[in-house]
Amino acid sequence: MLDQNKIEGRNPVLEALKAGREIDKILVAKGSEKGSIQKIIGIAKEKKIPIQYVERQKIDQLSESHAHQGVMAFVAAYQYAELEEILQRAEQKKDAPFLLLLDGITDPHNLGSILRTADAAGVDGVIIPKRNAVGLTATVAKTSAGAVEYVPVVKVPNLSQNIDKLKRNGFWIIGADMDGEKDYYDEELTGKIALVVGSEGSGIGRLIKEKCDFLVRIPMKGKVGSLNASVAASILMYEAVRQREQKGRGDSP
Amino acid sequence: MLDQNKIEGRNPVLEALKAGREIDKILVAKGSEKGSIQKIIGIAKEKKIPIQYVERQKIDQLSESHAHQGVMAFVAAYQYAELEEILQRAEQKKDAPFLLLLDGITDPHNLGSILRTADAAGVDGVIIPKRNAVGLTATVAKTSAGAVEYVPVVKVPNLSQNIDKLKRNGFWIIGADMDGEKDYYDEELTGKIALVVGSEGSGIGRLIKEKCDFLVRIPMKGKVGSLNASVAASILMYEAVRQREQKGRGDSP
Repeated sequence: MLDQNKIEGRNPVLEALKAGREIDKILVAKGSEKGSIQKIIGIAKEKKIPIQYVERQKIDQLSESHAHQGVMAFVAAYQYAELEEILQRAEQKKDAPFLLLLDGITDPHNLGSILRTADAAGVDGVIIPKRNAVGLTATVAKTSAGAVEYVPVVKVPNLSQNIDKLKRNGFWIIGADMDGEKDYYDEELTGKIALVVGSEGSGIGRLIKEKCDFLVRIPMKGKVGSLNASVAASILMYEAVRQREQKGRGDSP
Repeated sequence: MLDQNKIEGRNPVLEALKAGREIDKILVAKGSEKGSIQKIIGIAKEKKIPIQYVERQKIDQLSESHAHQGVMAFVAAYQYAELEEILQRAEQKKDAPFLLLLDGITDPHNLGSILRTADAAGVDGVIIPKRNAVGLTATVAKTSAGAVEYVPVVKVPNLSQNIDKLKRNGFWIIGADMDGEKDYYDEELTGKIALVVGSEGSGIGRLIKEKCDFLVRIPMKGKVGSLNASVAASILMYEAVRQREQKGRGDSP
């Protein structure tokens, strides 16, 4: 995970926190949790920013300024959006709102590739969790071929609560899962929907899965057990495009 | 492009050529085109194996044995299949034969990812050109998540001639192109088909494009101009899966 956006040193990190900058995570050298670093930890916890306690040597290696004083923050290379913004904008469109939720995508190439397809498929917004997932890093931006500038990405502390909010807003939540009851193309994807895609290794988390209105599977006709996460997400997004287009023209879906 | 399968030195390379081993390319140090290397060049040209003339230093860097004598061959990490084999096997299946032709995919990660999806989508074989394209390297094998072992890949000197052969065998050739007349989901993909996908940068070559029976486009609703090649190929392959499954059940396609 390449990310050129680092803030190093006690005061710079503290200022970034106070200014409300979007911070992906904070590294703290073991043994230096005192004074202003204690303050940094306090604010970070309050803002639910992940903190990692590492050997000082690790921060030395990552440091560019070599004046890190035992603390380093990774800031998002790009600005995140707010869910409310996306919902408002989506409601004003002619087409039914179409969101994508990603549960635990940790590979920046996968996230970048998903954002690129999301742009092409006309997705209104992508929601990612704050923890155990990659954010909008420089590598993600590069792999997205620029889509990071166009597709609004929301980073939320709790994916599950946001699903509840979407449901209250009239969204159908459709999760991709190997154990889904229907093949994805047999499910109606034309309305107000949020697709949920998990990571390659472990799929969607159990709690999130239980919140889905439907689980759909992508049929696998070969010997390899799974698809690449970005490919799976792309196949689902474009099936929604197909159904919407053909329904819009009055074809059978 | 990582490929651990190198053969170094005049005799080993000559023997590999005579034994008919599948060779991806041969590096020859500039200035050493004489004696047995001249012989190697002759056989390689006959077999249409690409030869690259490079500085001796380059081969020094790549050499593991440090006894390369100015010549090094890169052999395929995996065995290629024959088109006839694939056609025979495909004809014996219950379902209509389904092939994929790749024109100029040079990124090993893209080829690997495409093979992975091809396995999942039940593609009967993938055809790639000998020149200006990546072969079955170690990186391709790794990215394919093992699919390289299951999906037959044919490497042909001339993609265009092979399209003619497929047409004589009753295949419809469907190319993916930005200027396609129909959206891909509005084209019939249920019969005996070969999908053609080009590289991200330049798409399908002009000659190949002219040989296609139909050109279909993937609608782009965003601001980024193209999809990742492996994503585009995956969307098309799975649309064929959908149409075949739903038609098999008697649903409207």
